[in-house]
Amino acid sequence: MIARSNLLFDRITIVSPDMSGGAYTMTDAFVSVRDGLVVHIGGSRAAAVLTLEGVEFETYPGAGRILVPALANAHGHAAMTLMRNSADDLSLHDWLFNVVFPRETRLREQDVRAGTRLALCEMIRSGTGAAADMYFFQDTVLESFVEAGARLNLSIDGKRRDATGELVPAPEDLERFLETARRHGDGRVAISLLMHSVYLYPDGIYRTMASIAEDLALPVQIHVSETHREVRECVAKHGSTPPAYLEATGFFRTPTLAAHCVHLTPADREILARNDVTVVHNPSSNLKLGSGIADIHAMQQSGIRVALGTDGAASNNNLDLFHEIRLSAFLAKGTTGEAATMDAHTVLRMATVNGAVGCGFPGVGILEVGKQADLVVLNADRASMTPLGDPMSAFVYSSDASCVESLLVDGRMLLRKGELTTLDEERIRADALESARHIVSAAS
Amino acid sequence: MIARSNLLFDRITIVSPDMSGGAYTMTDAFVSVRDGLVVHIGGSRAAAVLTLEGVEFETYPGAGRILVPALANAHGHAAMTLMRNSADDLSLHDWLFNVVFPRETRLREQDVRAGTRLALCEMIRSGTGAAADMYFFQDTVLESFVEAGARLNLSIDGKRRDATGELVPAPEDLERFLETARRHGDGRVAISLLMHSVYLYPDGIYRTMASIAEDLALPVQIHVSETHREVRECVAKHGSTPPAYLEATGFFRTPTLAAHCVHLTPADREILARNDVTVVHNPSSNLKLGSGIADIHAMQQSGIRVALGTDGAASNNNLDLFHEIRLSAFLAKGTTGEAATMDAHTVLRMATVNGAVGCGFPGVGILEVGKQADLVVLNADRASMTPLGDPMSAFVYSSDASCVESLLVDGRMLLRKGELTTLDEERIRADALESARHIVSAAS
Repeated sequence: MIARSNLLFDRITIVSPDMSGGAYTMTDAFVSVRDGLVVHIGGSRAAAVLTLEGVEFETYPGAGRILVPALANAHGHAAMTLMRNSADDLSLHDWLFNVVFPRETRLREQDVRAGTRLALCEMIRSGTGAAADMYFFQDTVLESFVEAGARLNLSIDGKRRDATGELVPAPEDLERFLETARRHGDGRVAISLLMHSVYLYPDGIYRTMASIAEDLALPVQIHVSETHREVRECVAKHGSTPPAYLEATGFFRTPTLAAHCVHLTPADREILARNDVTVVHNPSSNLKLGSGIADIHAMQQSGIRVALGTDGAASNNNLDLFHEIRLSAFLAKGTTGEAATMDAHTVLRMATVNGAVGCGFPGVGILEVGKQADLVVLNADRASMTPLGDPMSAFVYSSDASCVESLLVDGRMLLRKGELTTLDEERIRADALESARHIVSAAS
Repeated sequence: MIARSNLLFDRITIVSPDMSGGAYTMTDAFVSVRDGLVVHIGGSRAAAVLTLEGVEFETYPGAGRILVPALANAHGHAAMTLMRNSADDLSLHDWLFNVVFPRETRLREQDVRAGTRLALCEMIRSGTGAAADMYFFQDTVLESFVEAGARLNLSIDGKRRDATGELVPAPEDLERFLETARRHGDGRVAISLLMHSVYLYPDGIYRTMASIAEDLALPVQIHVSETHREVRECVAKHGSTPPAYLEATGFFRTPTLAAHCVHLTPADREILARNDVTVVHNPSSNLKLGSGIADIHAMQQSGIRVALGTDGAASNNNLDLFHEIRLSAFLAKGTTGEAATMDAHTVLRMATVNGAVGCGFPGVGILEVGKQADLVVLNADRASMTPLGDPMSAFVYSSDASCVESLLVDGRMLLRKGELTTLDEERIRADALESARHIVSAAS
């Protein structure tokens, strides 16, 4: 792993959530980063330099640059990058059953490694410092994130088929990953329980898995109310909506990342609001698959924490949170008919601190003295961001992934002025192409 | 003006509409451009070189590159770049009456020049070869587009206030601009009549202006049914919707760019379909201002030609058609609940040939032998476009403006591997900042 950088950001513009639920902007700021922490934010160069006394540090010129907390991608399937642009414009059922699932049966560990590393190249280049992941070969996913230096909330199945083919709990897998994360994760890996959805497993196992999550104090990752069909079938089978069914079977007693939540009732929102649930809004994927538009404005009015996710690249087709940022604001305004809905600071919080907290990293997501240095530097020195105007508006409404110049996670510069420092991008792209050929051509 | 380039694109991937209403992809293609025209497309280098016999030409390596017709931005107000990121999250009425209109009273000719040139930098960098414009100081707008080398459909008021303050027709202005475009436009400038909307002018003038448009064979640019309120008030006043009112007063007898069309009835769609109307879909602006989501799927089912626009940067906040491309596909899928709706080739046509035809440039928008060389080269050699998959999907779902490497208009390379060749970007940005300070600070 590369060393941490001690840094002095010199007259930079800051856009960040604040500690009281709002957000702030500061221009001509001096920000010091030392030993992985933000140790100073202020208007005086001398004061900033003082906090770096005794260590070598690098000065990062801030002219035309915006410093923002690293973005958090709170729902995704990283290795699905392998299926990018290869099965679009199909109806959801065709896409899943005739394309995605057959391809996934061909996945080898080396494919997941290649796809995950490819995803990490794209995510780091687009300013993402932390991601939740839900996929196969989790040992490989963990290893890939650890070597890349990004934060990870990794969901682990914790279930296995026994000799008779029945799905049974396997809490030992969860314990093994908890131990691996403790030993190798350097504080950057959180482990959660993977519950795909209310429809994928036999009824009996939900209560058991919920109590395992509670016993191990494990967070949960789950898809919730993504489609009309899911909700309709859940109501028909259980007499309750997915959130109600999950609460009744004992879920939501540990922090939960609930992805999608496109089709919620007011009662569903109350359930999510009274528990430690982070709803992960995936607007691109929800539109692209025809699932609909999640009413995140109503969720926020109900007091629910909402974060952002890209979902997998097979239904997006990028891992670029800047698309989701812009789209979240636009969809809320467009569907409520009110341009003042979902203002820039609310969207900024979704993309940063809400996602970081949801993924289990409360020490990041806000640019504040004492917090860990997970930061993005945006280059705003371009025609498309001239005039800059309000920097918070500029971040939400006119910046894009190509503005990302540098990314720090835990004080380590994973992207340094456009160069990836922990990943061999050329080799990763070649490996990914070979893996994509394997799974795509074999299955189609 | 810079000279035309004679070019041989060497083993490039083509994504383009075709002549029969569909689209095509070709890999390892050789494309020759000579004297502003595409003169060869095929699989043989020798055949391509033959068509360039007798002229000096440049070889453009095509590995990892996609060649697409230049994009057309069929609705916008270029100089509104000056108001970028300076008045967001306001309700539409506040935004228009308390911010935009007061600022526009301060506009000087030099401000419109700076803002238009700034817009041209951004549009050329994001692959836009042709744009429609509706704003003030049209002489300056025309001059700026001509010097930049981009195509322009420029709408001219053709109305003036007489000594008593009454709005009267001024066809001589239209004739003057038609003459200027003929003399200086080099075939790249089309003139149209500016009718802002059904609500801005006194009733009496609509019929007169419609017959002037018909007499001069002038296309028209107009905002149509952008908001619920516009439709409601038009029905209350005239007993008919905006499209019906316009048809009844004699409009739509010449080609018309109808921007927005968010709130149409089935009868409205029939009116637009039976006339030579190009509906310009501005999905970002329509969402951001809370106007709603135009049902372009229903329009296309009715046989209406739909093109794309960014609207002004004050309500977007970019002039980046890649955002509109992605969003058009996503919104149609998300609102119809069907992922197969609005497939990639339909969106490609909206962004290129439909916009070109709508703006009055039927010789561009399709990559075809004999057409004018208005072309974008995209660089797909990056993690976020690996694997490339289907190139047409890649263009719609995973490319973005930062992929734009070069832009040709009329055979002239306005962007050459990332460098603007006709615009002094540094100076333009400085001028724009000064103008933005003038109009923004003075009015707020």
